[in-house]
Amino acid sequence: MIAAGAAVPSVPVPAKDPILLRSDAGGVATLTLNRPEARNALSMALMGALQQQLDAIREDPGVRVVILQGAGPAFCAGHDLKEMRANPSREATDAVFRTCARLMLSIARLPQPVIARVHGIATAAGCQLVATCDLAVCAEGARFATPGVQIGLFCSTPMVALSRAVSRKAALEMLLVGEPVDAAEALRIGLVNRVVPEADLDATVGALAARIAAKARRVLAIGKEAFGRQIEMGLEEAYGYAAEVMTRNMMMADAQEGIDAFLGKRSPRWEP
Amino acid sequence: MIAAGAAVPSVPVPAKDPILLRSDAGGVATLTLNRPEARNALSMALMGALQQQLDAIREDPGVRVVILQGAGPAFCAGHDLKEMRANPSREATDAVFRTCARLMLSIARLPQPVIARVHGIATAAGCQLVATCDLAVCAEGARFATPGVQIGLFCSTPMVALSRAVSRKAALEMLLVGEPVDAAEALRIGLVNRVVPEADLDATVGALAARIAAKARRVLAIGKEAFGRQIEMGLEEAYGYAAEVMTRNMMMADAQEGIDAFLGKRSPRWEP
Amino acid sequence: MIAAGAAVPSVPVPAKDPILLRSDAGGVATLTLNRPEARNALSMALMGALQQQLDAIREDPGVRVVILQGAGPAFCAGHDLKEMRANPSREATDAVFRTCARLMLSIARLPQPVIARVHGIATAAGCQLVATCDLAVCAEGARFATPGVQIGLFCSTPMVALSRAVSRKAALEMLLVGEPVDAAEALRIGLVNRVVPEADLDATVGALAARIAAKARRVLAIGKEAFGRQIEMGLEEAYGYAAEVMTRNMMMADAQEGIDAFLGKRSPRWEP
Repeated sequence: MIAAGAAVPSVPVPAKDPILLRSDAGGVATLTLNRPEARNALSMALMGALQQQLDAIREDPGVRVVILQGAGPAFCAGHDLKEMRANPSREATDAVFRTCARLMLSIARLPQPVIARVHGIATAAGCQLVATCDLAVCAEGARFATPGVQIGLFCSTPMVALSRAVSRKAALEMLLVGEPVDAAEALRIGLVNRVVPEADLDATVGALAARIAAKARRVLAIGKEAFGRQIEMGLEEAYGYAAEVMTRNMMMADAQEGIDAFLGKRSPRWEP
Repeated sequence: MIAAGAAVPSVPVPAKDPILLRSDAGGVATLTLNRPEARNALSMALMGALQQQLDAIREDPGVRVVILQGAGPAFCAGHDLKEMRANPSREATDAVFRTCARLMLSIARLPQPVIARVHGIATAAGCQLVATCDLAVCAEGARFATPGVQIGLFCSTPMVALSRAVSRKAALEMLLVGEPVDAAEALRIGLVNRVVPEADLDATVGALAARIAAKARRVLAIGKEAFGRQIEMGLEEAYGYAAEVMTRNMMMADAQEGIDAFLGKRSPRWEP
Repeated sequence: MIAAGAAVPSVPVPAKDPILLRSDAGGVATLTLNRPEARNALSMALMGALQQQLDAIREDPGVRVVILQGAGPAFCAGHDLKEMRANPSREATDAVFRTCARLMLSIARLPQPVIARVHGIATAAGCQLVATCDLAVCAEGARFATPGVQIGLFCSTPMVALSRAVSRKAALEMLLVGEPVDAAEALRIGLVNRVVPEADLDATVGALAARIAAKARRVLAIGKEAFGRQIEMGLEEAYGYAAEVMTRNMMMADAQEGIDAFLGKRSPRWEP
């Protein structure tokens, strides 16, 4: 896979060990960060590959829901510090953080819901990925941290997602102290939806994804977009907007079919 | 009772089975959704009756606090889908969602605090009522859901209240998956203030209402209005506004009396 | 100590029992509200002394973190009602609430993180102090309340901080009912970060402060400022701003040193 904006090699490199894997089944696209030796650090190439896949999934009516996971022992350890230190110019640094911000906004704005499947550590921009995904399920051994302050680089972009996912004091403790919180604490503060034994992680995430994949694609898209928009409005504006969205939704074939099926006690057949 | 905006019958209908009941005692107005056979679905008539009572209560100095509850097995199952399918025009649909949004805003802006007493299921706009009320107490058997996505109609207006009451991931799970959360989970995510055994529900809600009813009416109204306004402001603006509100409050007879009573170790006598 | 804006006595008063104590050690400034006989009520003089210390600390590179605590049985019981009743004019009242709002904003905007160490009751503006501090640790016997509604004076300024720290229903219950919540409930709703036995309070707060004091001063300042700014923005604006902050941070000597130390597996040496 080629990072967006990266130079395209004239001879295609054999994709033996691609840095991002994708597999699709039953309307579920699973994206696997695949730099296990680097704890799936978000190099420019990996962010580019992820952006490229999100851009493709956005237009793909066959995908109803996305699972994001990591290969190897870690979920994701954040940015690739070695790469950043090797390219220390302001321009290169700025490109990293803008690429990352665009990636996170793309997840938030993807029409399909995105579930983080977190089996190991999720730190810095890796923790930001978890906070950014619509839902997150983690194993009991998962750990979450925004440790930038330990290395003199405050996790300011991860903070944008984290401070919208959890309460202020919980976010500030993670940001100012920089130490990991365990799975139970992540659940308590609202950073993840569920904690399960690692042996049950795939089954739990799979079942959650399957339940969402059984919904009408366009209805999920309408709802997710409306969530992001109304949350930034005042109450009165939000209600005006949401009432419009509901009327528009009600005029769609999926709603007509869904309500008829419900009243007729049968299963709905959604538009493709 | 007559729905606001509905045609007024020339001969009053005997109110044998009104769709909304109201009883007043000790400064507490209890409103009971009374369509048990329809799980208290919010028909246009029921929303109209509720709006009418809220409009009356707003001007009624005898009411210090409102309890909202449902008759029969359910608290409220949301909109009346049969009625909506029978009136499928865009205009009729739009009227339903605008009427509902106005109703929810009226609860949020009512000078008197509103407590939801939830003994059974609260789904879709019924869950929105719970999220909208200032406080909520539920029985152990209560269930909460925003299941619209199951029938192709995303709960976009319930989302406005839900996403302001609970954390993002908790709200998104309810909205994207559509399955019920139980009472313990509702407490954990902040959708309700307290869970009690069903046998204790009336006593708990009654005691909570009585404690609020013992407060100064005008002071409650000032505080509730200020809550809704300041929460939509930035920190500096909010402080400027709240400081003004406190000075205005301090100049009121109720504050003078309350502080004198406190310093003199006696009970206060509020303005009517 | 002299309250900011108060008349300066021509002969200095011997500071035998100053109303605010400060001690500094290891980059940690500890401020102690010292009106134990008045449960550390925030008189104009005490607010002035606190403001003065915050203004000094803001410019003091030797201070990395601040601990705020109370002497005697209480943490802080809010405003000094006796003083307020003795000066009941609108002007005097307005001065109290504006002084208080400025004080709270100063804590929120202090470059250094502020930890509340709460061993006893924290009520009204005292509870607001806890909600305003970046972090809070309390003893098992601590109690929190916004009881203004009991005396006819709704806690509208405390509400600004409280409603940004905890969920809506939790905040509204404290504000509308006015009764205390215990330490476990304060933890559950996010008003404090940790609850410990009173015997462990100093050790826990000290260890937390020491961990923060070991961080780079300028980096903490950048992060705390960015937290307050980005939280009031929409998601896209927040990411644009935060990406800029991170690039600026990465260009700082502390980040270069921190990352080099991390990659080289040694301890960093921060700029003073």
